[in-house]
Amino acid sequence: MSKHLTHTADLSKEEILQIFSYAKNFLDFKKRDDLNGKLIINIFFENSTRTRSSFEIAAKRLGADVVNLDVARSSTSKGETLFDTAANLDAMGPDAIIVRHNRAGVPKILSKYVKCSIINAGDGAHQHPTQGLLDLFTLMQKWGSLEGKKIAIIGDIRNSRVANSDIELFTRFGAKVLLVGPPQFLPQTHFPTTNSLKEAIDFADAVISLRTQTERHKNPTFSSLQDYAQNFKVTKKLIGNKDIFVMHPGPVHRNIDLDDEIMDDERCLVLEQVKNGVAVRMAILKHLLGDSK
Amino acid sequence: MSKHLTHTADLSKEEILQIFSYAKNFLDFKKRDDLNGKLIINIFFENSTRTRSSFEIAAKRLGADVVNLDVARSSTSKGETLFDTAANLDAMGPDAIIVRHNRAGVPKILSKYVKCSIINAGDGAHQHPTQGLLDLFTLMQKWGSLEGKKIAIIGDIRNSRVANSDIELFTRFGAKVLLVGPPQFLPQTHFPTTNSLKEAIDFADAVISLRTQTERHKNPTFSSLQDYAQNFKVTKKLIGNKDIFVMHPGPVHRNIDLDDEIMDDERCLVLEQVKNGVAVRMAILKHLLGDSK
Amino acid sequence: MSKHLTHTADLSKEEILQIFSYAKNFLDFKKRDDLNGKLIINIFFENSTRTRSSFEIAAKRLGADVVNLDVARSSTSKGETLFDTAANLDAMGPDAIIVRHNRAGVPKILSKYVKCSIINAGDGAHQHPTQGLLDLFTLMQKWGSLEGKKIAIIGDIRNSRVANSDIELFTRFGAKVLLVGPPQFLPQTHFPTTNSLKEAIDFADAVISLRTQTERHKNPTFSSLQDYAQNFKVTKKLIGNKDIFVMHPGPVHRNIDLDDEIMDDERCLVLEQVKNGVAVRMAILKHLLGDSK
Repeated sequence: MSKHLTHTADLSKEEILQIFSYAKNFLDFKKRDDLNGKLIINIFFENSTRTRSSFEIAAKRLGADVVNLDVARSSTSKGETLFDTAANLDAMGPDAIIVRHNRAGVPKILSKYVKCSIINAGDGAHQHPTQGLLDLFTLMQKWGSLEGKKIAIIGDIRNSRVANSDIELFTRFGAKVLLVGPPQFLPQTHFPTTNSLKEAIDFADAVISLRTQTERHKNPTFSSLQDYAQNFKVTKKLIGNKDIFVMHPGPVHRNIDLDDEIMDDERCLVLEQVKNGVAVRMAILKHLLGDSK
Repeated sequence: MSKHLTHTADLSKEEILQIFSYAKNFLDFKKRDDLNGKLIINIFFENSTRTRSSFEIAAKRLGADVVNLDVARSSTSKGETLFDTAANLDAMGPDAIIVRHNRAGVPKILSKYVKCSIINAGDGAHQHPTQGLLDLFTLMQKWGSLEGKKIAIIGDIRNSRVANSDIELFTRFGAKVLLVGPPQFLPQTHFPTTNSLKEAIDFADAVISLRTQTERHKNPTFSSLQDYAQNFKVTKKLIGNKDIFVMHPGPVHRNIDLDDEIMDDERCLVLEQVKNGVAVRMAILKHLLGDSK
Repeated sequence: MSKHLTHTADLSKEEILQIFSYAKNFLDFKKRDDLNGKLIINIFFENSTRTRSSFEIAAKRLGADVVNLDVARSSTSKGETLFDTAANLDAMGPDAIIVRHNRAGVPKILSKYVKCSIINAGDGAHQHPTQGLLDLFTLMQKWGSLEGKKIAIIGDIRNSRVANSDIELFTRFGAKVLLVGPPQFLPQTHFPTTNSLKEAIDFADAVISLRTQTERHKNPTFSSLQDYAQNFKVTKKLIGNKDIFVMHPGPVHRNIDLDDEIMDDERCLVLEQVKNGVAVRMAILKHLLGDSK
């Protein structure tokens, strides 16, 4: 039975701590042989530079072979269903298929059609579990534990798979979350929300700014990115000297999501997130595939 | 002298049996070192997910390095001829170039411009020798021998490079073939033909359904895929309990080429074909490159 | 401190001779382990078959892992700046980023944003240092030294990054250069120029024909490629029996840049340039990365 990672909830706390213990060792970025002989297929139905290359690098650093499928050019245009595509790839004998898709739930469904591991690299506005795990890891590296910490998530939360994964993990590890944004960006939720960035910064030990997912807006109910920035851009001026971390899953829309000054501040962890992302993805691959076959 | 594979007839019966003997060993999908240090270039002038990734996986499972060329982005748009592109790639020292092109004969011609092996991954409506070989291998695995077996090939045979490769191999290995489809899909041929799917199923020990190559139809003389399906879709109801295998080179157009029920039937070998495809391509690469240099 | 290669002038004469001494050994095209465990990212903002695959092959022949980024699909379309893209890639721990961009100076600027090596694979009409080095290497292999040799560069010099790199290197190694083309193709320069191809051939021990960079022409002031060819196509008839080498960085526009007859002549070094290109790029990678980490 292959292990899948389609949702952060697929992993127990103990499994996550085991993954993080691997990831710490992988931060030296040395090439390893943990996954020598394994085969990993990346199939991205949505464009991505960062996540696809992070996974590809993670797999190669562990000695796995990687095959990338350019899906704009795929058989789905020849009348084949998504599930047949997955079953066909699976028949080629990979150890894992890493999939990104613009529809929520696709990785979960695919996991029932294949023998290999399915890893969700982002499905619609639903989940982005490896991003959630690397965000959690980044904060654990800083704080040791999330117990009692307060984290504000800012922006287009309603359309954010990153927010969903972050919230599930942060709260499970003992943090309090506050969701921050204009009314049209906030989901229906039992978590506390606010429309005031100032309130969020006063509250939080860390803020996570999100990219506005304009490509997912069906009825653009907000006026413009500039209007958004006016009220929700995280600036150095706003956070002052507070002991607080500033994060963003990338790509950062500069001077809309974060201002140039805070990007250069040492409390801004954006590049650490990217670096940790490779190590955490290596650790996830090792956890899922390391004992298989 | 490099060995090429541009047409199924390039290989003798003995060579094919040698290749199949390698392929049987490769079905465990373990990583090997037979082609360590070899370099293989994929250049696909037509879109493909399945065949390109099957070749890429086959090469990597044997330890070769693989370089994929995205030809939409190639120098052919800068005024360079196809043959100069090939000669240039050859000058970079690959052991093989795997080429797919929409014009019949391109791989054969290229083989005269290069020092490395050329492998035809499909040229127009002419040949798809590795698909033919994996189809033959799949049936040999089931039957031991094709001597006296009857195989019906169904669909857009006139535009099918798969059919050409299958027919050459199946008849050489002792099978009888029957070509099945509407009149506008049947080639001028000395092989028996029929417009009756029922007749074909009564006749055959195996049927191979083909995808309708709408992209190669210059004057669409048939009314629609639905009309085609009405008469030529292979269904579980039609084949009943007959001891018969159902194959398709993929991508399958569900409920046009094959119905959902037969896709799930154990007599349907579509995923076995895909699995065998990797092993057979590994074996072909080993045969062509294994003793070179 | 990582070493970069953004301009031919980044390398001293001694370094270049060291690189060429590596390159001679690499001409056997055997797989090596000099860069085992290294990670190299290719990011090409302009289309390329030849240069990208030459670098990819060079890196893989030395045992490095390679990740290719398809930039048409990149985060730059999501509002991220080029410099953030580079900083993000750098955070993933590569040893080198190989970059092609249509704006002059981009590789140099990027080198200030990253910890890894930056290698310029062509920036606008500015520099193409690895092409310059392989051209120099190709002539050194033939002549032993460039001291006193005469080299004519023919064509769209004003828009040619290759010409810039060639001129800097050829003159530094003791050759005289003559720039040849219609007035609108010649740069403002202190080097001798001519509009007469005949004069150039009489003068030169080697001619380098360039592809007309129509994609960089803002105001097409020349009438047509055919008009250009009329006066500047290098033909076998024109060079007769002279002891002269004919080169071209590729892709060659046949019968515009060079005629078919001269392409087949043994004095034409186009394919040797391509072959040497892989070896020289291997040597450059070894020089830049071999001692790092």
